[in-house]
Amino acid sequence: MIETPYLLFLGDAPDQLAAKVAQGIRDWRPQNAIGQFRLPGCGADVKLNDMTLAEAREKGAKTLVVGVANRGGIISASWKKVLIEAIEMGYDIASGLHNLLRDEGDLVAAAQTHGRTLHDVRVPTVGYPIANGVKRSGKRLLAVGTDCSVGKMYTTLALDEAMRKRGKKSTFRATGQTGILITGSGVPLDAVIADFMAGAIEYLTPDNDEDHWDMIEGQGSLYHVSYSGVTLALIHGGQPDALVICHEPSRAHMRGLPGYQLPTLEMVRDTALPLARVANPKCQVTGISINTQHMSEDEALSYLEAVEKRMGLPAVDPFRQGADRLAEALDAI
Amino acid sequence: MIETPYLLFLGDAPDQLAAKVAQGIRDWRPQNAIGQFRLPGCGADVKLNDMTLAEAREKGAKTLVVGVANRGGIISASWKKVLIEAIEMGYDIASGLHNLLRDEGDLVAAAQTHGRTLHDVRVPTVGYPIANGVKRSGKRLLAVGTDCSVGKMYTTLALDEAMRKRGKKSTFRATGQTGILITGSGVPLDAVIADFMAGAIEYLTPDNDEDHWDMIEGQGSLYHVSYSGVTLALIHGGQPDALVICHEPSRAHMRGLPGYQLPTLEMVRDTALPLARVANPKCQVTGISINTQHMSEDEALSYLEAVEKRMGLPAVDPFRQGADRLAEALDAI
Repeated sequence: MIETPYLLFLGDAPDQLAAKVAQGIRDWRPQNAIGQFRLPGCGADVKLNDMTLAEAREKGAKTLVVGVANRGGIISASWKKVLIEAIEMGYDIASGLHNLLRDEGDLVAAAQTHGRTLHDVRVPTVGYPIANGVKRSGKRLLAVGTDCSVGKMYTTLALDEAMRKRGKKSTFRATGQTGILITGSGVPLDAVIADFMAGAIEYLTPDNDEDHWDMIEGQGSLYHVSYSGVTLALIHGGQPDALVICHEPSRAHMRGLPGYQLPTLEMVRDTALPLARVANPKCQVTGISINTQHMSEDEALSYLEAVEKRMGLPAVDPFRQGADRLAEALDAI
Repeated sequence: MIETPYLLFLGDAPDQLAAKVAQGIRDWRPQNAIGQFRLPGCGADVKLNDMTLAEAREKGAKTLVVGVANRGGIISASWKKVLIEAIEMGYDIASGLHNLLRDEGDLVAAAQTHGRTLHDVRVPTVGYPIANGVKRSGKRLLAVGTDCSVGKMYTTLALDEAMRKRGKKSTFRATGQTGILITGSGVPLDAVIADFMAGAIEYLTPDNDEDHWDMIEGQGSLYHVSYSGVTLALIHGGQPDALVICHEPSRAHMRGLPGYQLPTLEMVRDTALPLARVANPKCQVTGISINTQHMSEDEALSYLEAVEKRMGLPAVDPFRQGADRLAEALDAI
């Protein structure tokens, strides 16, 4: 568990896209972020107050979150200076970078000296169990995709928000580093040892109130040959009651796999649902989430209408329209 | 790669079952095993000459293979004494135990002093790539199961042997620790990090002659919720041209999962084949392998006949009948 509130470190992000972790925290857990810290030349701005380390600390900030991707695969000297100063002031540091904080001797030394914690959210810190398949109480929804990076995290975060606005009990369950940094906890599933993947998801989504929903962030795709095993572990470890199928219509091929076509929504439904029913015979597909960012408003709406008719399920772009209709569909489950 | 030939360490195995790794080597790679080493009270015997460390070393043994499961999860003092003496005589040590050789300070010290290698085959030693899905040359067969521990390793070892007896090019590809110790190499898939599972199988089964078959040992089952992700990584990383479905008819429920029924052969076929065709559109199910150890000869033969008729595919128990008919079926692929 990463202590909140955060100060978001944007560093010298060349552009807004490089700060997408910080933007995710700003969008989904604004109450967790007290301010932003930018170095000279920073090209990103997540519209929080710019603060010094000392100012944010005074306002109660507990953790400096690296909300930016680094260039060239190193933690630069200018970043280091800030991170070490932060540790000296009493901040924990949290990062989802490939380069681990724990591999940087000077950061480790500073953290030990000052009794602070370095959170590398890409690395599991729990000894997860092997999945036991025992039926859990409460309800769970899992986002499954036609491909990687089609909007599964966004969809489940939006669903979680829509549910809570409707007065329902809901928890977003992060399974990747961005989601973990946004919410402060989760399972970095892609870094878990094979035998423990499904068990890690059981651990992430334990027994709960019967009217509580876990909104489980999906990973990969059953049709993505590099990561499909991770997806199936989510389906079987998650025991979902509901699946939402996520799709991005402009892809020419599977991400990183030229020559591999995307499956249709029907193919994903017909593959995922029987597999999900092994763990939960009552599982249903309850909605479709389409990422229409590459379409005009008119194109998007007519595309969504066509999908809705074709699939017989609510089809929305949660970014354009919110996830209310996906949330409403869960009332019947 | 573990250096051969081996001396098989049976230790103080309480019974034959505890020495199943040694028995596997004896059955499938007898040319790799010079002899067996037993401690007083050993209840196992794999019918090799009993030898001292010195005798086997003189005959050329390079590696002492721990061919026995340990009790109580510790490497006992009586084992240690032998392992250290072996290292001092120039042996490498190979083990598939949960307790790693590398975690034993005295073994590590001895190995460093004498320049020997400790092989913990449960632990990956390679930085596997992320799968790229690129079509590989040569042919590959994968054993898929209705459940765990139904005979997938045995089936692929028997198929490999049958193919080579027919003068065909074939290599058994181990994906678990017993298989790795039997053949001296492979991928301990259950210990690989999630993101690299499929890539590890691509690495294990690279481009080969067009008429060469890799016989890939399966793991888990698409219907076993604890390990299904590992199975799907094998299906997508392996790009199999042929699947053989393995089954053990006496199971009351999935291994370790009371309340989970076994799927039918048809269910496994209809789930595995479309998934396999994502990576290799030409994939076919070519045979059924039934573990009939709990049946009489008559029962077994009539069960196999019924399965063969029902599935329209050769159905054999390779332990009773050999795998010739499963191998013949590959001529058409």
